[in-house]
Amino acid sequence: MTTHRLAAEPTHSVWNKDLLPRLSIAPGDTVLFECTDASGGQVKPGSTVADFLAIDRTKIHSLTGPVLIEGAEPGDVLQIDVLDVAHKGWAWTSVIAGLGFLDERFTEPYLFHWHLEGDVSRSLAPAVVPLRPFCGVMGVAQADAGEFRTRPPGAFGGNMDVRELSAGATLYLPVMVHGALFSCGDAHAAQGDGEVCINGMECPADVTLRFALHKNKTLAGPVIEAAPRTGEDGPAWVVVESGTDAFATAQAATSRMIDLLVVRWGFEPVQAYVLCSVAMKLRLSQVVNRPMVTVSAALAKSILPERSLF
Amino acid sequence: MTTHRLAAEPTHSVWNKDLLPRLSIAPGDTVLFECTDASGGQVKPGSTVADFLAIDRTKIHSLTGPVLIEGAEPGDVLQIDVLDVAHKGWAWTSVIAGLGFLDERFTEPYLFHWHLEGDVSRSLAPAVVPLRPFCGVMGVAQADAGEFRTRPPGAFGGNMDVRELSAGATLYLPVMVHGALFSCGDAHAAQGDGEVCINGMECPADVTLRFALHKNKTLAGPVIEAAPRTGEDGPAWVVVESGTDAFATAQAATSRMIDLLVVRWGFEPVQAYVLCSVAMKLRLSQVVNRPMVTVSAALAKSILPERSLF
Repeated sequence: MTTHRLAAEPTHSVWNKDLLPRLSIAPGDTVLFECTDASGGQVKPGSTVADFLAIDRTKIHSLTGPVLIEGAEPGDVLQIDVLDVAHKGWAWTSVIAGLGFLDERFTEPYLFHWHLEGDVSRSLAPAVVPLRPFCGVMGVAQADAGEFRTRPPGAFGGNMDVRELSAGATLYLPVMVHGALFSCGDAHAAQGDGEVCINGMECPADVTLRFALHKNKTLAGPVIEAAPRTGEDGPAWVVVESGTDAFATAQAATSRMIDLLVVRWGFEPVQAYVLCSVAMKLRLSQVVNRPMVTVSAALAKSILPERSLF
Repeated sequence: MTTHRLAAEPTHSVWNKDLLPRLSIAPGDTVLFECTDASGGQVKPGSTVADFLAIDRTKIHSLTGPVLIEGAEPGDVLQIDVLDVAHKGWAWTSVIAGLGFLDERFTEPYLFHWHLEGDVSRSLAPAVVPLRPFCGVMGVAQADAGEFRTRPPGAFGGNMDVRELSAGATLYLPVMVHGALFSCGDAHAAQGDGEVCINGMECPADVTLRFALHKNKTLAGPVIEAAPRTGEDGPAWVVVESGTDAFATAQAATSRMIDLLVVRWGFEPVQAYVLCSVAMKLRLSQVVNRPMVTVSAALAKSILPERSLF
């Protein structure tokens, strides 16, 4: 039950199972990940649009890791408890030609700087934007050999941009390689569903995660236990699915939620389908990490008897 | 400021601007709509799957109306305050071959009966499903002549199946014909986002709505002021968009939310885009009313200074 601290540098911006682990930990350990902002420190408060356009974009997302979890093997499940995500008081959001959900409407580059005051930002007056810091990227190395750019998310997690991954949440990911090789970064002090302009509030952060291992368990893709938020939904089971088509991805998320209800709560499949029809939430968590969108299917925990996932 | 009562029969299941109004009211008036369940009373507690398969499906959605609002003309906006949606203690949910979001996984017909106890149903044990009654269909007559089946929603409202339309909500719709000709029905005691199996908890209901008229106002499509719900999101501005492609429909909803922020709160368009990226919710409200899906883009009212829509 050791607590480790992992400095951000050297960051990495590809998934590659052959990256050397920067830290080895035991299940039960906690790690404080120092995370740069998604630009790897290239964007700073006061950076101009010209500065922003000149950054080295191969450095996005500048993840901290990988961390090897001792004893983790393919076929296991890695549990990640999000204990804390602490911003550093500043963040940025950009618009870039050719990126974003409304890239035909917004074609001019733009850079906005946020001053973060505790739980809100008042920088975009008259709006008062609540903060909910989380990592846009949390994932494990994929089984295939080679370098994979970090933009597309998948069954391994990665660039899911699911806003429910804030402090208090638990994320479950399938282990795909020896040691799991977990990395995180791309912290957002706040982000809506969709992340429509291509960014959340991009910020550096200290991210404290506790790891547990479930040996020989089946998990088709990411599942989250979401924590309650004042003025938002209460605790929930959230199935996260990424794919190239929004409709088909939402179908896959719904189907996996039904599987979860069948396996863990013993519903008949058709009854689980009916339950989803009358009670499940269906969110477009991100619509900009081309070619992938990410859909979250959520059921309030209050609806179901308490169960653990494994 | 009269309160009227409108019996359900004779119901209608097409939009047609030439339907004779069953009631004429003044702006400011309240109407209690008696609504049958979506089957028009053909499905009852105890109905079997065989009974259900034999119903006349041309009678779905069996709306109550139309109601003529005096003084309403094309180019005006109709405001509908949802004062109350009261179920009658029972509801049903079906699965039908060829319909529903997972029609390839679920191919056998199925009918489930719900007993409704106040704010919950315990019929699908061990689940305890919270109720949030609303009308799946609320809409005005379209400008084009002819009969239009009620399944697809649109700028006129209709079969939006947006769960936020529960008591306490306000819906704004563009008026498209003289008198608006408003109808409602397809009450759901509860429904998730997506309405994935093709039904919510289909129930008869007494629906109490108050109407107001805003003369000569522009509104591209439905907007909702959503009321807070315990354990769910607080009050919110919700833009509702329906279309044939989920991705493009979500883009259109986002773009309309940006327009709202620009027109009512004075944001620069690119700043409204940034605000949506860090704070907007994006939900798949229904994914089964082929060929249309309905997307809701929502912003918490707490983020913005108080404004009226008009």
